[in-house]
Amino acid sequence: MSALAEPVTGARLTLKLENLQVTGSFKARGATNKLLSLPPEAISRGIVTASGGNHGLAVARAARMAGVPATVFVTENATEEKREKLRRWGARVEVLGAVWHEANAGALAQATATGAAYFHPFADPQVVAGQGSVALELLEAVPDLELVLVAIGGGGLISGMAVVLKALKPSVRIIGIEPTGSPTLKASLDAGHVVHLDRVTSRVATMSCAETDAAVFALIRDHVDDVVLVSDEQMQSAAHWLWFELGIAADLSGAAAIAALQSGVVVLPEGTRCGALVCGAGPEGIVR
Amino acid sequence: MSALAEPVTGARLTLKLENLQVTGSFKARGATNKLLSLPPEAISRGIVTASGGNHGLAVARAARMAGVPATVFVTENATEEKREKLRRWGARVEVLGAVWHEANAGALAQATATGAAYFHPFADPQVVAGQGSVALELLEAVPDLELVLVAIGGGGLISGMAVVLKALKPSVRIIGIEPTGSPTLKASLDAGHVVHLDRVTSRVATMSCAETDAAVFALIRDHVDDVVLVSDEQMQSAAHWLWFELGIAADLSGAAAIAALQSGVVVLPEGTRCGALVCGAGPEGIVR
Repeated sequence: MSALAEPVTGARLTLKLENLQVTGSFKARGATNKLLSLPPEAISRGIVTASGGNHGLAVARAARMAGVPATVFVTENATEEKREKLRRWGARVEVLGAVWHEANAGALAQATATGAAYFHPFADPQVVAGQGSVALELLEAVPDLELVLVAIGGGGLISGMAVVLKALKPSVRIIGIEPTGSPTLKASLDAGHVVHLDRVTSRVATMSCAETDAAVFALIRDHVDDVVLVSDEQMQSAAHWLWFELGIAADLSGAAAIAALQSGVVVLPEGTRCGALVCGAGPEGIVR
Repeated sequence: MSALAEPVTGARLTLKLENLQVTGSFKARGATNKLLSLPPEAISRGIVTASGGNHGLAVARAARMAGVPATVFVTENATEEKREKLRRWGARVEVLGAVWHEANAGALAQATATGAAYFHPFADPQVVAGQGSVALELLEAVPDLELVLVAIGGGGLISGMAVVLKALKPSVRIIGIEPTGSPTLKASLDAGHVVHLDRVTSRVATMSCAETDAAVFALIRDHVDDVVLVSDEQMQSAAHWLWFELGIAADLSGAAAIAALQSGVVVLPEGTRCGALVCGAGPEGIVR
């Protein structure tokens, strides 16, 4: 019998626990790969980025590894807790603007003015390749993998994973998951080109993105089989399930794959060998 | 360099994540082993125990596996959340008394009256042997293990692990950790026999125990190298560290080993190959 009190699927599900990754999410992969792709002189004046979330922490750690200063621009609504976390990883925190785009303009301006290296959260081949490394480990752990479920924010993670999976095991189906309140890729795929969402209403910050990048879009268009939508509430319920059943403290993006299965948005034949990414750590399944 | 922002030790530390075990703690091992040690007729009238915590959940799951009813006695101060968790694992919940001893009397009385099998949380060789299985996995993962740190409640876990380790790799040092407010084994070892603590002031329920079992005491006396004490506050701080650094949502007993290192109660030479158990899942490091 199942080890679970309330199973969500008849598939054979393997969870890749990126919530236990350093800095609490898969983002450490992309930032570290970007760092390692650059010659020492390119980062000698530090690294700058814009992110109130996991990418910021990952960049702070990368800079620390390299022994250079990091500056992370966050928006005015970034909580003191998030700012404190960035500082604990050694970053200087700059507060600018109400939305990411404004904070990012500050990061770009600082990079230009100071010669610091700028690390984009997803629109960067080295970042995408770094995130893709998670697919190498998943294939190693599950050689008979048939399908993967991956949450989408800007699209860096799923595009990196899709390139790896379609190269090494083209039979693997790849399904992306977006919030109903931020269907950036879904809308772009339907339109056949990158679209800008006028409204992003999801409260899942790590999956909210008004517009993806053209190169990332092209990778997803060519390598991802489908994109489905789940609601914030379904992810909240799935995060609670992960905590109750498995002791996993996932953020809402980390619960997206479970939400897709639990809600029936994705229905898998009994026994399907399915991999799902728990993207990051968070208190959302515990604190309600 | 270290993957950590604020390392707590120069030892090479491997954490065994029993917080990700089914039902959220190592207790599933003991209850399952106890179940498997019994002939079907011994459990045909169900299983009964007393526990407001992880052992109760583990027994509920074991009964579910066997397809027989479970009754779990809890004390009046058991939260509705704990009762609900037990019910979700299929257990009938009985509320009795103010302290564990009183609830346990009810469980024993019901076992006698109904013929149900009684599963003690630790004073049972099959339960102790089941908990010990975690040491087999730890040795497999870390063949050059030199030392382990294990939290103590009643002593079932550390006695089971100590028997395994001293049999398979006698060079491994085993250090137990108790709360300053519940030094049951420390006091018993100092006295040379099982003592009853008049006052247990720790708020860490999974590590609070007024009196251990004579057989468990003998195993610990013969196989455990040392027992040290940490405060509830040190465990609270360690639980937060586990969450911040590693995305691990540990309960306070799960943070005991980190507390011992972080506070300097245990100081290890640089590079020591150390294993530590994260006993169970909990929100304590996240919710403050």
